[in-house]
Formats: sequence, C-alpha cells, structure tokens
Amino acid sequence: MSVKPNHRPTIDSIREAAGRIAPFVHRTPIMSCQTINDLTGGKVFLKCENLQKTGAFKARGAHNAVYCLDEITAAKGVATHSSGNHGAAVALAARSRGIPVWVVMPDNAPAVKQKAVAHYGAHIVHCKPGLNNRETALAEVVAEQGATLVHPFNDYRVIEGQGTATLEIFEQIATPDVLLAPVGGGGLISGSSIVSRALSPATQVIAAEPAQADDAWQSFRTGERVVIDSPDTIADGLRASIGVINFELILENVDDVVRVEEVDIVKAMRFVWERMKIIIEPSSAVPIAALIEGIVDIKGKTAAVILTGGNVDLDSLPWRS
Amino acid sequence: MSVKPNHRPTIDSIREAAGRIAPFVHRTPIMSCQTINDLTGGKVFLKCENLQKTGAFKARGAHNAVYCLDEITAAKGVATHSSGNHGAAVALAARSRGIPVWVVMPDNAPAVKQKAVAHYGAHIVHCKPGLNNRETALAEVVAEQGATLVHPFNDYRVIEGQGTATLEIFEQIATPDVLLAPVGGGGLISGSSIVSRALSPATQVIAAEPAQADDAWQSFRTGERVVIDSPDTIADGLRASIGVINFELILENVDDVVRVEEVDIVKAMRFVWERMKIIIEPSSAVPIAALIEGIVDIKGKTAAVILTGGNVDLDSLPWRS
Repeated sequence: MSVKPNHRPTIDSIREAAGRIAPFVHRTPIMSCQTINDLTGGKVFLKCENLQKTGAFKARGAHNAVYCLDEITAAKGVATHSSGNHGAAVALAARSRGIPVWVVMPDNAPAVKQKAVAHYGAHIVHCKPGLNNRETALAEVVAEQGATLVHPFNDYRVIEGQGTATLEIFEQIATPDVLLAPVGGGGLISGSSIVSRALSPATQVIAAEPAQADDAWQSFRTGERVVIDSPDTIADGLRASIGVINFELILENVDDVVRVEEVDIVKAMRFVWERMKIIIEPSSAVPIAALIEGIVDIKGKTAAVILTGGNVDLDSLPWRS
Repeated sequence: MSVKPNHRPTIDSIREAAGRIAPFVHRTPIMSCQTINDLTGGKVFLKCENLQKTGAFKARGAHNAVYCLDEITAAKGVATHSSGNHGAAVALAARSRGIPVWVVMPDNAPAVKQKAVAHYGAHIVHCKPGLNNRETALAEVVAEQGATLVHPFNDYRVIEGQGTATLEIFEQIATPDVLLAPVGGGGLISGSSIVSRALSPATQVIAAEPAQADDAWQSFRTGERVVIDSPDTIADGLRASIGVINFELILENVDDVVRVEEVDIVKAMRFVWERMKIIIEPSSAVPIAALIEGIVDIKGKTAAVILTGGNVDLDSLPWRS
C-alpha cells in the first residue's frame, strides 16, 4: 500500500518535514567557485547535497516518508524502485528505523549504487530497465510482503522531504534571483519550487534536464505529461519520467524547463571535479551545464543550484577512453 | 637572492602571517566522516586544504613569502622549483601582487599541475626530475632574472604561511589529541608543529610519509638528514627530501614520523573519494592511510588531519587499469 496523506505539500508541511528528518540528515554546506562566477557573470551558490548522507538529496525524502509511518504499518517494512540513490536512501532510513526494506533495481544501475543499497541491508530485487518493468516488480514485492511503497518522486511525503534542501538554501544565503535544480521524476524540483514560491515569489525557478531525456521539457511545453521509456542519458539519476503529482506542481510553480546536451553534462561534471575538488554525479552537472553554456543567463544575478548527488562509479568515468 | 629573515618562525610570526595572507586565501572547512571514525575508533577532523585556492595548502606559504617582499625586490619577480602545487601557488601570489614569476618544473610533473602553473601566467622552465637538476635550473633563472627565490619548503616565510592552516584548526575544533600531516620537504609539518606545540604541548604531532620516499623517517630516527633523489611514490607532492630548516624544526617539535605503503595510499585516496565525495591527491591520502591501517592508533582519541591538496590528473587515476 502507498502513503496517501490527504494534503498537498505546502511550505508548512515542508517545514514540519525539516523538523522530522533533522536528526537523520546533514545540513549540507553551500560552496561557490570564482571561475563559475566569472564564466556566468553572476554569483552562483552550490548546495552540496552530494555531501548529504548516502551521497544524495534523496536521504531527505526517504527519511520523511519512513518516519511518517505509524508503528504497525512501519513494522511491515517499506519497498521502492530506484536507479540507485533513492534505493540507498530508503534502505538507510529503514535501517535507522529498524524495519525491513525491499529495493527493486534495474540491471543497468551503476555498480556503486547497487553496492550502497546492499550495504545498508536492503533486499535487492533485480529487474530489466524501464519504468514498466520496475513498477511491475515493485507491485509484486508490495503484494507479497505487505510493505509500504515509498515512491521515488510521485509521493507527497517524499516531495516534502526533498523540499527541505531549499528551505536550508533560503536560510544559508540571501534570497537568490534564480533557483536551479535538475529534473528526473520531479521530486526535488516540485518540493523546491513550493518553498521558493512561498518564500520569494520573484525568484525564478528553473528545472534542467538532459536533452536526451526531455520528458519534463516536452510536458511543460505541451501541458500534457509525456513519458519516455529508458532514455539514453549519462545522467542516470534523471532517466525517470516526470510523475503525475510532480508535473502538477511543476506547472504551478516552475518558471521554465531547459535542456542540456550530453557532451556539456560531462564537461560541466569534469569542470566541477577539477575546479572545486568535489565529486558530483552526472545528474548534478546538468544545471551547471545550463549555466556554463549560457542556456540560463544569470548575468548580474545570483543563482542557487542544487548539486543533487555524488555517487559515481570510479571505475567507469565518462571521460575515460 | 633568497628571503632570509633574521628570526625563526614562532607562534607570533605565524599569527602575523595569518593576518598577512587572509585577504588572499580561503579559511578552509573541516569535514568529518562517520566511516573513518568507525574504522579508527576515534574522532577524525579533516582540514580541507584541497579546497584551498590553487587546490592545495601551498597557497598559504607562497602568499606569505611574496607579500613579505619590499616593493623594489618584489618588482624583479620571484622564482621557484616545484612538482606543481607550490609552483601554482607562487604563480597565483605573484599574479595577485602583479610581479613576474618563473617556475622550474620536472618533466614528470602531472599535466594538470603544469597546466595550472601556466594558467596563472608563470614562465615555466622545464628540467629533468631530481632535486639537483631542479636546483641547478632554478639557480640559473635567479641569476639571469634577479628574481627572489621562494623555496617550496626550506624558507622561514613559507613555513610560517603553511603553519596558518593549523592555527585555523585550533580555532575551528576543540584541541585535538593528535595532529597528522604528510611530510615531503617538511614545510607544512614544521609550521604546523610550531603552532601545535605552542597552543597545546600535549597534542601528539605526527608526520606521515610514503615508505617509498622515507627520507624524513630515516632522518628522524638517525638524527642525520637523509636525502633521497627521485623516489618512486605515487604521492607526487611528497617526492622532495626534507629541508635543512624543516628537519631542525621537526626534531624540535614533531613526536613521530610514520610510513605507509603505496597500495594503502591508493586505497585511502579512493576511500575518501567514494565516502566523502571530495577529491584529494595521493599526498593527502598518506595520513588517512596511516589512520585506516592502524599505523597511528587513535582509539578513543581525537585527531586533526590536514588534507593537503586535491590536484589530480583525472585522465590517469591510480586505480585505472
């Protein structure tokens, strides 16, 4: 069964989520880089969720969802499907609460992410890539085990948890002119956009997406939710298509969706590694690429960017020949 | 001509250096990692000089040396030899002060470090590896140009600058039981040990060195300065042998020198990349390896470790087959 609270996420419910998860997640630092400022002509503040527990912002939504469950429901465990980061996050949250957890993972998930999920003590259920295959395998697990589904993005509790990163941004820096985050299923950008709209209606909220997985871009422009099955992008965290709830919230609160090319994602990723000495995964590089390539113009403005994660397989880097 | 102030570095001169360089260098953050604490049974605080300007602590000593020069001397420029990080640091400091700079670099210096030095506008003078070759080439440059030599480590001003990282450590965390830093020429450990001794005589100061470049270890045990020409270690920042001034200060203020194996350096480096999502170069991994391998036992203690730099050639990583 799925968590279906009878309220939509609001700034207040996201504030509650922040209090709920505070003992279990890091308040991550904000970094900046003079070269990025020089290249963009703006001032860029990077929210380092790559330094978050489990190496990704997903720890926020997972802990909120797991700690919202009542005792009896929680005891039956939780289940999810994930290309990796959400799976590790739910596994950690479940371990922290002392309940069982099942994670459905596609065969093409990076080895490092599969290892992390196993490390936290989750039962891994393998499936073929593609949303349909994942959901079928997950439905079976939920039916067999009686576990509660914690969807990676199409879930109010998860959206609230993800929104807490942006709450922190608004506490850590002066109100930014632009807020940028990558979009996959849309959990992060939908939660972030609620916070940004509430705290600063004038701040432009922009979602960045790989051009080769541009379901959110297409959806945003047509007003109809588009699903792309198994898109071919290096940004493994952004291969999911936009969720139903997420798309509704994006239409309400997001100002634009922009697209970046694969080559620019790799370039931006390497740039951050070399200049900032921090490890980000390709998904994190997507909004940075949008800035460096001038797709989002922030000349004379301030921009906050969420670096979503740092889980990379060091044995297969994208610039490896 | 070389900078030869008539005083030896003290806690007061290091405090002065901190004020002098403050406008030009970062106050770097301290990070921690639960898994490192679990593995060591202690509490480890990592001073992130990999996030320092130029990607290494060397920016501290270089700026102190360059900004100590009087106007007339400064105008003739500065010169140095370096496997890379010190070269980039002196180049940046010289650019900041608007004076010319020559950097002698061995042919086997990593491409990324040569690129950085060139990026800051230095004149690069190539030479064969080995201390003698470097020093000969440097003497020629100094004679020809009338530039002031800024030695990478055997220089009071440089030692004072490097010591400022440890001043910050003592401000940022509670007094540690153990202070660990890698040792190459000894600029960092000698400056650090003066600060640590002055502020907390009970804190154990330990230098960590690659076993394959163990000149400081040999020197410390015999009381006679040992020089090893062109040692074969992956820790390219630690290939220099211990300097004369540095060795004197180490004998006075350092409690022990420990050695780590190459395989453990690579393991510790990868560990930090994967777990902490920050990029450190092999030299930075040397003290971490000493802790993880139990060569330095910190069970029940607190330890501060200086992560010296993060300049790595991403095209030739040590775990690449």
